[in-house]
Amino acid sequence: MKTIKTIEDMQLKQDELHKEQKSIGFVPTMGYLHDGHLALIKEARKENDIVVVSIFVNPLQFNQASDLEQYPRDFERDEKLLIEEGVDFVFYPSKEAMYPNPLSIDLSLNQRGDVLCGATRPGHFEGVLMVLTKLFNIVNPNRVYFGLKDAQQVAVVDSLINDFNFNIELVPVPTIRESDGLAMSSRNVNLSTYERQEAYKIYQALLKGQKLIKASNWTRQRVLDEVESFLKHTLSGEIDYVDCLTYPELTREITEKHDIIIAVAVKYQNARLIDNIILTPSGDVKYRSES
Amino acid sequence: MKTIKTIEDMQLKQDELHKEQKSIGFVPTMGYLHDGHLALIKEARKENDIVVVSIFVNPLQFNQASDLEQYPRDFERDEKLLIEEGVDFVFYPSKEAMYPNPLSIDLSLNQRGDVLCGATRPGHFEGVLMVLTKLFNIVNPNRVYFGLKDAQQVAVVDSLINDFNFNIELVPVPTIRESDGLAMSSRNVNLSTYERQEAYKIYQALLKGQKLIKASNWTRQRVLDEVESFLKHTLSGEIDYVDCLTYPELTREITEKHDIIIAVAVKYQNARLIDNIILTPSGDVKYRSES
Repeated sequence: MKTIKTIEDMQLKQDELHKEQKSIGFVPTMGYLHDGHLALIKEARKENDIVVVSIFVNPLQFNQASDLEQYPRDFERDEKLLIEEGVDFVFYPSKEAMYPNPLSIDLSLNQRGDVLCGATRPGHFEGVLMVLTKLFNIVNPNRVYFGLKDAQQVAVVDSLINDFNFNIELVPVPTIRESDGLAMSSRNVNLSTYERQEAYKIYQALLKGQKLIKASNWTRQRVLDEVESFLKHTLSGEIDYVDCLTYPELTREITEKHDIIIAVAVKYQNARLIDNIILTPSGDVKYRSES
Repeated sequence: MKTIKTIEDMQLKQDELHKEQKSIGFVPTMGYLHDGHLALIKEARKENDIVVVSIFVNPLQFNQASDLEQYPRDFERDEKLLIEEGVDFVFYPSKEAMYPNPLSIDLSLNQRGDVLCGATRPGHFEGVLMVLTKLFNIVNPNRVYFGLKDAQQVAVVDSLINDFNFNIELVPVPTIRESDGLAMSSRNVNLSTYERQEAYKIYQALLKGQKLIKASNWTRQRVLDEVESFLKHTLSGEIDYVDCLTYPELTREITEKHDIIIAVAVKYQNARLIDNIILTPSGDVKYRSES
């Protein structure tokens, strides 16, 4: 595996690869890799000649400077994991390379940004859009991989690719779950034993919502009530939000033509967990893990 | 020459061209081509294997709906001119292809946009940025050509390419002038005989400004006064603006490290003319036409 640190070198390399008719799969990350990232990389490895992973802690997407400082970093450990996964190139630029001057252009979202996690993180997705616009032009991939655990991020990237006509296929990768159904997350280690034991019920709540949608005559409000009341009665954690929206538009006006997302966020003592399921109009799971 | 009307076909074609190791020069236009466009195309023809011209009247960059409707269009005439210039592909998409859905993302400029012509055209350069972002991703050129007559547009495109890390070389093409110095423009035909006879003095005024800068001990205010007073005393047209700024940053704080633009706009009865010169810190002309 080769580490590339400058934008110029990365652009030269991808130019060369495209001239050699190689397809490039790209997994953008902020490093400190966990199983979720590795699932994306494995998927990229299957479908492309070349896999590029970027590691860049993007200051633009943090709401608080303290968050940015405390964000965990361990490049040597990440490097080993990437080598094990057969990654070809890791793009690891400095902050100064990515943001050498104050930006003249601001990006903003007039849709998809102000619900779910975006509602309490002003500017977060705008920061994500800016860094991805830059990375897409630097890496110039054929396919880009994002995990559906952050389904709103996938929806926002879908907007980016469509609005800007990036010549890139977006590959959403299904959430990996523990055997009891809890969505894998680097934050799960911050749960107490008791919290961990009950946390699988977050997924159970989503399945309750799905059951309602599969039966006829459901309404958005009934789904919200069902999921919220189940969570309230079975969890010690505090409900941050429960929502049921069209996907990927993330609006409340759900018709029989829309795919649907049910999404929740729960705050525990030292961890905030998010999870979701995305359903077809008839209530079937939309994205299914192959494994 | 081949006419390409869909985004998919254009992206397939450029993919194919890059795989064949062909370089692509790109001239984005709104059609109704004049000598200024042809100068850009000739420059692109010299430097690239393949020349792509786009013709798309971009609704996003018009401030008024009436302007957009009245914008002249003549694709057959344009097509003939492009064939004569040896253009390889004209990309000629519909409005529906370029803007199939309401955009989720808004672009805005926090620098370079609110001076000169941008001061009186709110949203214009944002619309230009959006369509260029799309076109750059659709055509994926190695080089893109813009005329320095609209020097602010060149400055804004420079920001776009830098901020978004487009892997594209921006080639600014010097303004073509009539034998008396008047900058060529499709609007010159709307001048009365009297107006046309005096209009060369706009360029004379810019040269007066340059002379001051070439001499020592100039200040921005003295340049403004000199150019403005010359225009006032020699032209019947109404001065819209006279400005002297750093280039391409377009700020008022000019140090000895900055390139400098002197720019003017003059309103005649049926035409608003713009012109500028861009100078090195020592007052020499920065971009010189080869011919």
